[in-house]
Amino acid sequence: TDERTGQVLFEALPWIKNITGKTVVVKYGGAAMVDEKLRADVMSDIVLLKILGVNVVIVHGGGKAINRAFDALNFPVEFKDGQRVTTPAAMDVVRQVLVGEVNQDLVTAINRHGNLAVGVAGSDAGTIVCSTLNPELGRVGKIEHVDTTYLETLIKSDYIPVVATVGIGEDGGYYNINADVAAGHVAAAIGAQKIVYLTDVDGVYMDFSDKNSLISNMSLREMEDMLASGTVDKGMIPKLESCCYALHAGVFRSHVINGKTPHSLLIELLTDKGIGTTMHSTEE
Amino acid sequence: TDERTGQVLFEALPWIKNITGKTVVVKYGGAAMVDEKLRADVMSDIVLLKILGVNVVIVHGGGKAINRAFDALNFPVEFKDGQRVTTPAAMDVVRQVLVGEVNQDLVTAINRHGNLAVGVAGSDAGTIVCSTLNPELGRVGKIEHVDTTYLETLIKSDYIPVVATVGIGEDGGYYNINADVAAGHVAAAIGAQKIVYLTDVDGVYMDFSDKNSLISNMSLREMEDMLASGTVDKGMIPKLESCCYALHAGVFRSHVINGKTPHSLLIELLTDKGIGTTMHSTEE
Amino acid sequence: TDERTGQVLFEALPWIKNITGKTVVVKYGGAAMVDEKLRADVMSDIVLLKILGVNVVIVHGGGKAINRAFDALNFPVEFKDGQRVTTPAAMDVVRQVLVGEVNQDLVTAINRHGNLAVGVAGSDAGTIVCSTLNPELGRVGKIEHVDTTYLETLIKSDYIPVVATVGIGEDGGYYNINADVAAGHVAAAIGAQKIVYLTDVDGVYMDFSDKNSLISNMSLREMEDMLASGTVDKGMIPKLESCCYALHAGVFRSHVINGKTPHSLLIELLTDKGIGTTMHSTEE
Amino acid sequence: TDERTGQVLFEALPWIKNITGKTVVVKYGGAAMVDEKLRADVMSDIVLLKILGVNVVIVHGGGKAINRAFDALNFPVEFKDGQRVTTPAAMDVVRQVLVGEVNQDLVTAINRHGNLAVGVAGSDAGTIVCSTLNPELGRVGKIEHVDTTYLETLIKSDYIPVVATVGIGEDGGYYNINADVAAGHVAAAIGAQKIVYLTDVDGVYMDFSDKNSLISNMSLREMEDMLASGTVDKGMIPKLESCCYALHAGVFRSHVINGKTPHSLLIELLTDKGIGTTMHSTEE
Amino acid sequence: TDERTGQVLFEALPWIKNITGKTVVVKYGGAAMVDEKLRADVMSDIVLLKILGVNVVIVHGGGKAINRAFDALNFPVEFKDGQRVTTPAAMDVVRQVLVGEVNQDLVTAINRHGNLAVGVAGSDAGTIVCSTLNPELGRVGKIEHVDTTYLETLIKSDYIPVVATVGIGEDGGYYNINADVAAGHVAAAIGAQKIVYLTDVDGVYMDFSDKNSLISNMSLREMEDMLASGTVDKGMIPKLESCCYALHAGVFRSHVINGKTPHSLLIELLTDKGIGTTMHSTEE
Amino acid sequence: TDERTGQVLFEALPWIKNITGKTVVVKYGGAAMVDEKLRADVMSDIVLLKILGVNVVIVHGGGKAINRAFDALNFPVEFKDGQRVTTPAAMDVVRQVLVGEVNQDLVTAINRHGNLAVGVAGSDAGTIVCSTLNPELGRVGKIEHVDTTYLETLIKSDYIPVVATVGIGEDGGYYNINADVAAGHVAAAIGAQKIVYLTDVDGVYMDFSDKNSLISNMSLREMEDMLASGTVDKGMIPKLESCCYALHAGVFRSHVINGKTPHSLLIELLTDKGIGTTMHSTEE
Repeated sequence: TDERTGQVLFEALPWIKNITGKTVVVKYGGAAMVDEKLRADVMSDIVLLKILGVNVVIVHGGGKAINRAFDALNFPVEFKDGQRVTTPAAMDVVRQVLVGEVNQDLVTAINRHGNLAVGVAGSDAGTIVCSTLNPELGRVGKIEHVDTTYLETLIKSDYIPVVATVGIGEDGGYYNINADVAAGHVAAAIGAQKIVYLTDVDGVYMDFSDKNSLISNMSLREMEDMLASGTVDKGMIPKLESCCYALHAGVFRSHVINGKTPHSLLIELLTDKGIGTTMHSTEE
Repeated sequence: TDERTGQVLFEALPWIKNITGKTVVVKYGGAAMVDEKLRADVMSDIVLLKILGVNVVIVHGGGKAINRAFDALNFPVEFKDGQRVTTPAAMDVVRQVLVGEVNQDLVTAINRHGNLAVGVAGSDAGTIVCSTLNPELGRVGKIEHVDTTYLETLIKSDYIPVVATVGIGEDGGYYNINADVAAGHVAAAIGAQKIVYLTDVDGVYMDFSDKNSLISNMSLREMEDMLASGTVDKGMIPKLESCCYALHAGVFRSHVINGKTPHSLLIELLTDKGIGTTMHSTEE
Repeated sequence: TDERTGQVLFEALPWIKNITGKTVVVKYGGAAMVDEKLRADVMSDIVLLKILGVNVVIVHGGGKAINRAFDALNFPVEFKDGQRVTTPAAMDVVRQVLVGEVNQDLVTAINRHGNLAVGVAGSDAGTIVCSTLNPELGRVGKIEHVDTTYLETLIKSDYIPVVATVGIGEDGGYYNINADVAAGHVAAAIGAQKIVYLTDVDGVYMDFSDKNSLISNMSLREMEDMLASGTVDKGMIPKLESCCYALHAGVFRSHVINGKTPHSLLIELLTDKGIGTTMHSTEE
Repeated sequence: TDERTGQVLFEALPWIKNITGKTVVVKYGGAAMVDEKLRADVMSDIVLLKILGVNVVIVHGGGKAINRAFDALNFPVEFKDGQRVTTPAAMDVVRQVLVGEVNQDLVTAINRHGNLAVGVAGSDAGTIVCSTLNPELGRVGKIEHVDTTYLETLIKSDYIPVVATVGIGEDGGYYNINADVAAGHVAAAIGAQKIVYLTDVDGVYMDFSDKNSLISNMSLREMEDMLASGTVDKGMIPKLESCCYALHAGVFRSHVINGKTPHSLLIELLTDKGIGTTMHSTEE
Repeated sequence: TDERTGQVLFEALPWIKNITGKTVVVKYGGAAMVDEKLRADVMSDIVLLKILGVNVVIVHGGGKAINRAFDALNFPVEFKDGQRVTTPAAMDVVRQVLVGEVNQDLVTAINRHGNLAVGVAGSDAGTIVCSTLNPELGRVGKIEHVDTTYLETLIKSDYIPVVATVGIGEDGGYYNINADVAAGHVAAAIGAQKIVYLTDVDGVYMDFSDKNSLISNMSLREMEDMLASGTVDKGMIPKLESCCYALHAGVFRSHVINGKTPHSLLIELLTDKGIGTTMHSTEE
Repeated sequence: TDERTGQVLFEALPWIKNITGKTVVVKYGGAAMVDEKLRADVMSDIVLLKILGVNVVIVHGGGKAINRAFDALNFPVEFKDGQRVTTPAAMDVVRQVLVGEVNQDLVTAINRHGNLAVGVAGSDAGTIVCSTLNPELGRVGKIEHVDTTYLETLIKSDYIPVVATVGIGEDGGYYNINADVAAGHVAAAIGAQKIVYLTDVDGVYMDFSDKNSLISNMSLREMEDMLASGTVDKGMIPKLESCCYALHAGVFRSHVINGKTPHSLLIELLTDKGIGTTMHSTEE
């Protein structure tokens, strides 16, 4: 077991070498965000990466917490063509929950390990500028521009920015943004080396119903083919689309991993074999 | 009128000279926070000060917005010896409103003039650490320590930090803090040159019922005497106590001004005569 | 009047924002140089601009003081085709007066407000290199080159350079230079944002005999048309030509103002309406 | 096994955090220096530590290679009271072997992983200044002073200095130095956090003949007691004495590990349990 | 002769080593200031020293040029107890000549070798602040304070400041200062390593009438004894007094040399034997 | 003789000006390396140049010392077509002598004047990378690449690198390199201004048998013509070829001088007339 220990440490060498000083965007979501134990585990791993000199940026949404808040307020829910409408009043609840609750809970979970994390709303310093995605859906945002000045200031000062996906419009109003999409745009704008999606599944499956069909490596083309084929599991679609966007913009690798597996983030990023699905833009 | 214009600009010289490069904490509150027009006006003035090279830090609470949120939720209100109790559940509402709504609204009001403002919760990077003020009042915080590292990073990068008065406990839980008190502690910790309280009155009165008894200048001793005399208007007590705390800690001047008077901030800080009440620690 | 005061301070905002950190060349001359009270007033304004972070460079001649010195010495005056000839001996008097008297008097007037000003002769560090303008006029200089290294050192160290318009030739001899021309060349070489000519009139007039014909704004083309039309008042010609030179070289704005109006410099540079004539290179 | 992998990576966190940016002196010796495979393994580990941001300084002797060179030259060996005498001629052979052969071989072994290592003789830039330890033993050196200027230059430029234990005297002559002693002095002078002795045994034993008596942790006092008791294995004496010297001088921890165990350096420095003997100056 | 050449270059080594990066104040005067050929020679030497990395500061008066100017103006000369009175009007002539003529001529002589020199009046940036030495003598200054900020800015930017000995009073008026005295004060304030007086004699003589009595080395005490003895040649008194002042203030060495001897500055500063008189504060 | 002294110092001015801050590679060899007195003399001159701000890099071989070592070991000498073969075993001796003896002796000779020199093997930090020049000659190296990173680090920290001409191969093995060739490659790679070859003759002769035919100046073309003519003295061929290589690569001047003449280095570099042969790439 000393042998195994030494081997693990030793194998991590080229991976650590490769990732030190680079920026990794972690799209935080799924059970790892809700379950306090899982959250604490993932946060420890993120702090470890930070300590290794990796610039981690966390991007998160918070659908479940938002639904809970709507329920508590008996908030009327409007639908348009089967999609929920975000009225300005609903948007106020969204930002209260995302910025004022979920975001701070993630910040605080990290800060148990030292005062490393700071909360960032997309409206801070005009970081995420949105327009209206579809007028019928109200304040659902389409990202027009990510201004990375503020994020870079925080990274340079060695903070871990935790970004709540609330955008700001040219009209001074707020927008709700899909967190998978936001993570891809942030990674692209900031020139991240990697983007990691924490999910509740082990990765991307060739056939989601077949647990033996987990894909270890996919190229950008393979992702695009899979998306075109229409066989992708619905929850995975925005993740894959966001991956494609980020890789086209120059992000080197993207990873889909299971946030419920202990230390999945470390194993995926710091070992030869990995544990989830790695996507790469180059054909190798 | 050219003469008057030239004179105003000219008189501002020694004041501007004195304040450039210094830090001014603005305790934001009252009508200037609620009324959109007044808020926009004050924010313009703050941006002006920033542009002149003044490092402005805004500290705010948000009592009215919190009450509104409690009402919307039909939140049960507990009282203990006549004081409202902040249960953990109430605290969740408090931080949703302060961090997720009021804070971002102030940030956005400033950012119409450029991407200068960023929201800061007291829990970000462990900035405001609290303990329990009184166990019977629940999550009402007593400030134990203000860690200025993060605020200084933001100031050095020329951002205007807008601080929501939510503190973090050693237990990882959140605390609600009186904003007047928080402003004084932040000013003291960061070594501010000045602290300004935006209120709905013209300043401190010798006798609040006599509008002719406005005090232009008070010494620290006069404030302490006034507090001891028990004649201070109730709303003014925490402001005066916080002033005393800040001046004892080395803050050079504190000011109480009326946020409803157009450009009161500029007039108080940049003219010979001022417009509200100036408090100073030295006997002059 | 509090309202008026606040308004003036507030209006100054975008102008101050625009000018901070920029370089403004002030061509000093006329009554404001001779009258001690006016000189002190203008110098206060210049110190104010410096304190606001404006890099002010002063360029001056000194015709009247030179004439006085010639008279005291009963200096023979030669004329060639109606223009005065500057013999080498006359040049020695010119530089004694400009560098040894007028320049230091301006330096000292500024330094009452702090040790901000330093005298610069065009011969210091080879700053202004001249050739002979017209052999028949003796040591009257044509500017061949402005080396801004020394001026930039002084600006970077936050000094106000006060430049006496004595140039140095490749032959090691000195040259007398027209101060309006020198100011334009210095502004162009140093990449100034603005150049301001302090004169004894309120600005440029459409018809100098009609005091109601003051021009508030002119384009570069309008200046060139006016110069071509031959209707410009004689004293204004070198100023306008120098303006054209500077604007063609990339200086953003030039201003002609009356040095006798109190704070005219502040009013012209820091208010919406201004007080003299503003020239701009772009058609707006 | 994913679980084990994740656990190892995760456990390494506080150790890596603790050691990043710190300086670790590695006394290189034993089989790990002679056996090419072991040497390559250790060097990989050292490169890993460097990549993690640890400033590694290697100190080495080379007794076996020196003996081989003496044999090749049929070099006469003098003894004085049972100790070998280093004549000036012998010293020439010593420095040829240490500086010209052993040192470069270590440098080259590291540089297979990138151009990280540079050879340093104690005489370079006057780094290790010696006097005569005992006139009867010839050029055997007593360290008078370690000048760390050059080592710090190399460390700051992210090189791994490999120090051959040849010292320079005030007389301009060379001295041979015991490498265990030299390592302790270098660690002390440079303010190292840790010093690690690579040996051919698993650590320090309570009773060297009892392989079950390996000591995991010893305090400085325990080491001194053990040395005083006279029960220490002869080869371990200079190591323990050098440890004591370094810990007294402020080095935080020293470690004795087996260079023949794969990745022993990583396991000792980066895991909770370690693998050899750790010495600490504080009583815990 | 190659041998001699090599020897001179080689001997200069420790002297150059000693003087590089240090500040040397040169009191310029005598024939070397008036004669154009001598002036050019000395200036070449000064440029050489600058190029070697010596920070040279030149301090000069200009008695002969001032007298010439008074004559040209038929200026009335007042005497009080045998000493000339400097009326305010006379002071205007003094500064015209010193700042506007002599100073620029020295600047220009240096700048033939590159744009190294800049003129400094004592009034620039409040560098030399004076009070009235003796009310009966008018504007003759006693140095109250040397503010070295401006000189240090110029030195740091590798300029050679050429200082005209015109001081500024608290009253805003100018003062004429003895140049020997000024040089000593500047050297003391700026923390110069050496001060050199260029004179028309070979150094200090034991008995000025005996050309064989030239003193090569004197201690501070010997200078003070000589001054007390009253045997010093009149012209040498202010130089010696100024030497004593500077040495007491921490200047390491002072030198009196003959400005008419070619390269006397280089020989005195860069050879073992020197050429004039060296004064030192320590007894050696 | 004062006149002569002053003249020598003065003449050195433009040469010193020209060489300060530049890099000069000195190919060290001949008697100046073997004779202790000559070596000490040359080293003093090199220290002088360093102190003047010249970045000196020394490159040396050590044929005589290597031969002596081979003799001491009774080392078998193989020849191939009349050229000596460097077997791997011979290479071990070569590097022991060059790196472990000759190199350190030069380092130590310099360090008598201060801790300026540090030894560099071509294998340190992969500085000199070689391939096999001719398989039949064994480990004789052809320089493939000079990586100047390490040398530049040392120069920037004001050390004098003393480079032993042992190269490293892609195979991790060592190579012996001709020192004349190595000096030219180092000078070319590092962008040296000058390269100086210390030899045992006064320079390059038109006809080596005619001591009156010493060439003071040669152009690159003249060198190439002379090499093509086949009339060059055998020992001078690699020097001239290396000169040509360096000058083609942008080195400004090369010099061949006699290391036995006192201060020949200083005289050649710092006087108008020089003392050996100067080669230049430009036709002048």
